[in-house]
Amino acid sequence: MISRILAADLPAHAGRRVRLAGWLHRRRDLKSVSFLVLRDRSGLAQIVLREPLPEAAEETVLAVTGTVVLNDQAPGGAEVTDPEVEVLSAPVAPPPFDLYRPVVGGTLPTILDHAPAALRHPRLRAPFEIAAAAVAGFRAALDGLGFVETSTPKIVASATESGANVFGIDYFGRPAFLAQSPQFFKQALVGVFERVYEVGPVFRAEPHDTARHLAQYTSLDAELGFVEDHRDVMAVLTAALTGMHASVAERAGSATALLELDVPEVPGEIPSIHFAEAQELVARHTGEDPRGEPDLAPAHERFLGEWARREHGSEFLFVTGYPMVKRPFYTHPDPERPEFSRSFDLLFRGLELVTGGQRLHRHADYLAALAARGEDPEAYGGYLAAFAHGMPPHGGFAIGLERWTARFTGAANVRQTTLFPRDLHRLTP
Amino acid sequence: MISRILAADLPAHAGRRVRLAGWLHRRRDLKSVSFLVLRDRSGLAQIVLREPLPEAAEETVLAVTGTVVLNDQAPGGAEVTDPEVEVLSAPVAPPPFDLYRPVVGGTLPTILDHAPAALRHPRLRAPFEIAAAAVAGFRAALDGLGFVETSTPKIVASATESGANVFGIDYFGRPAFLAQSPQFFKQALVGVFERVYEVGPVFRAEPHDTARHLAQYTSLDAELGFVEDHRDVMAVLTAALTGMHASVAERAGSATALLELDVPEVPGEIPSIHFAEAQELVARHTGEDPRGEPDLAPAHERFLGEWARREHGSEFLFVTGYPMVKRPFYTHPDPERPEFSRSFDLLFRGLELVTGGQRLHRHADYLAALAARGEDPEAYGGYLAAFAHGMPPHGGFAIGLERWTARFTGAANVRQTTLFPRDLHRLTP
Repeated sequence: MISRILAADLPAHAGRRVRLAGWLHRRRDLKSVSFLVLRDRSGLAQIVLREPLPEAAEETVLAVTGTVVLNDQAPGGAEVTDPEVEVLSAPVAPPPFDLYRPVVGGTLPTILDHAPAALRHPRLRAPFEIAAAAVAGFRAALDGLGFVETSTPKIVASATESGANVFGIDYFGRPAFLAQSPQFFKQALVGVFERVYEVGPVFRAEPHDTARHLAQYTSLDAELGFVEDHRDVMAVLTAALTGMHASVAERAGSATALLELDVPEVPGEIPSIHFAEAQELVARHTGEDPRGEPDLAPAHERFLGEWARREHGSEFLFVTGYPMVKRPFYTHPDPERPEFSRSFDLLFRGLELVTGGQRLHRHADYLAALAARGEDPEAYGGYLAAFAHGMPPHGGFAIGLERWTARFTGAANVRQTTLFPRDLHRLTP
Repeated sequence: MISRILAADLPAHAGRRVRLAGWLHRRRDLKSVSFLVLRDRSGLAQIVLREPLPEAAEETVLAVTGTVVLNDQAPGGAEVTDPEVEVLSAPVAPPPFDLYRPVVGGTLPTILDHAPAALRHPRLRAPFEIAAAAVAGFRAALDGLGFVETSTPKIVASATESGANVFGIDYFGRPAFLAQSPQFFKQALVGVFERVYEVGPVFRAEPHDTARHLAQYTSLDAELGFVEDHRDVMAVLTAALTGMHASVAERAGSATALLELDVPEVPGEIPSIHFAEAQELVARHTGEDPRGEPDLAPAHERFLGEWARREHGSEFLFVTGYPMVKRPFYTHPDPERPEFSRSFDLLFRGLELVTGGQRLHRHADYLAALAARGEDPEAYGGYLAAFAHGMPPHGGFAIGLERWTARFTGAANVRQTTLFPRDLHRLTP
């Protein structure tokens, strides 16, 4: 038996006998000829049959052996003639939408209910090819900077990020929780590897039914030691994003072409503005005065995104120095203006995409920070222990992969860029 | 300020002023001179001080600026003289073991209780450098074969592998479970991407307190479509292992050197023996007769491992065709001997390391397999739905990363190769 080739490779085999395998994407039976369109992971191939193929519904799995003929009219510029067709596996039911149409009909809930079938559609599959390429680029960038990849526990004894919104587990009869982030572990591991990253699931029991909340998402977490301040973290994030975009351009070209996406350039140095200046800019230009507010409103983030594009030609903008009151207890303050932090948000097209910053590193500073917030240090015993033995100045960031992919592809709902999303209402498939 | 360099790079900077940063690994105060050993992620560096450094305990985080002098007596062949030493962060307590000793004293429970400190020891850290390199090699091998990396849900509505040993979750007031494997998702995604892999956590509520059971481990899962049979899966697994070993040799050389490990060769074709023949071999050579048993005993796996080394010069051995009764319901039978399966185990040094095989792909075959086991197809509704729309012949495998690392490094307990293990008794740190 000849080895299988992929649809995209047909033109290189013109004149030869080849074997294809894939799904029957579409069939058209004319009087004296039938056209089958076969779909495989590389794309589509047209098969020309002199006699109709009996009883093969769309999504039938086929192997086809035939002769490659160049034809400008065929998808990809070549087609297969004189085929022998073998049915490998027949569907028992049609999907509730036509996969051969340019856009899948049906509501988002229907599509998500039938995700194993819906994701076969090239347009619905494309975001995940882009996401996989982006993750590969993230890793390559951080590997090149001496980071070590880790896998840390997703079952924890206590919630570190915020007491609410955690999923409870019965852990051999004891209460436990699903980790909301690898924050504690990645900080502790700065003491071991200095530079670590993790690509893994995080869990948020957020009772929000919105287009951007998920109960599980994939977090690209990084943390590094021996920083001067948050700007060293921003430089690593810039390198990570540069790697992600480069990898998408290199590895997911057919997905970006199908979705008609430009891969935006990541500036060598992403423009940056302090939170206080950002508020002044908003006050000066929008007629609203947010000064004194501890956070930026979505409309103000959008304004800043437009400002960055206009003034700096950048789709990205760092906003630094968010007020301490809105940041987690482990955030490092700005020593010169202690009400502000050494933290940042990265806006992409006017939407918050990444949060990060420098963390506290001295044991005494953690005790003071918890006391100032009226928190009991006892509840953070395990967390604090890691800082008892000498930790360098450090910081890090986390990118939500599904949100990144939604922003990058222009998807309106983060569920369109999540494989089998989990939310307030959805637990299957 | 000069940029920081790493300890391992000292010899390249002989005669120059450099800046190092790291932990005070060890100090020796003599009458007229003090030696500090600084530890960073690359290794150790000796600092020569003409006056004693006051009050700096081991594990103090230091930055040192000084002049590099080549010295064969110093670790790495160079040392730093005329240093200016800056304390970046002081420990508030010593770890309960000396990190500067060649081997960490203390029992495994003490080490695990203080993992953030214990993992700083180069010998305890080394297995994780090896694991990270292995995962990178796994990905590189599968990326090169056209696989797509995925992230799938860890919260599921029902248990597919076995009803017992799952962790229950309160999912917004509904019962749910932690995924025991991505088995369902990776099979469903063969219909989308044809070839997928995932590196992620899996959860087993196994009430076993042994040296090899964990409540969470990292599974390297792969699944591929359009296979002829399980041998295509074995070929991909062989490529994955080859990539893992090559990457360890390339990226974790200092860790393997420290642990005095040889990186064993993965044969181009790993020897393979059918389960029935393996039993006959055991009967012929060991005086025991396991024929009729549905599985191999550990002692027989060890015998087979020795046999493979002796007869084939291989540390690896595939055992194929395990009896259907001991395999999950989705296993594809051998059409010629339906009591045997198209599955395999991979033995490494006489211990089972990987399980895999061809899966059923026809909807009707799933219904028949569940009926034959007296299982209710209703309970597998979501799983079965993925097979209703045409699935190609496919198969896959899963490698437990922590077990792989334990076998590779010779660790007696899988907890030594797990970052912050979770087990029947342990939920912290």
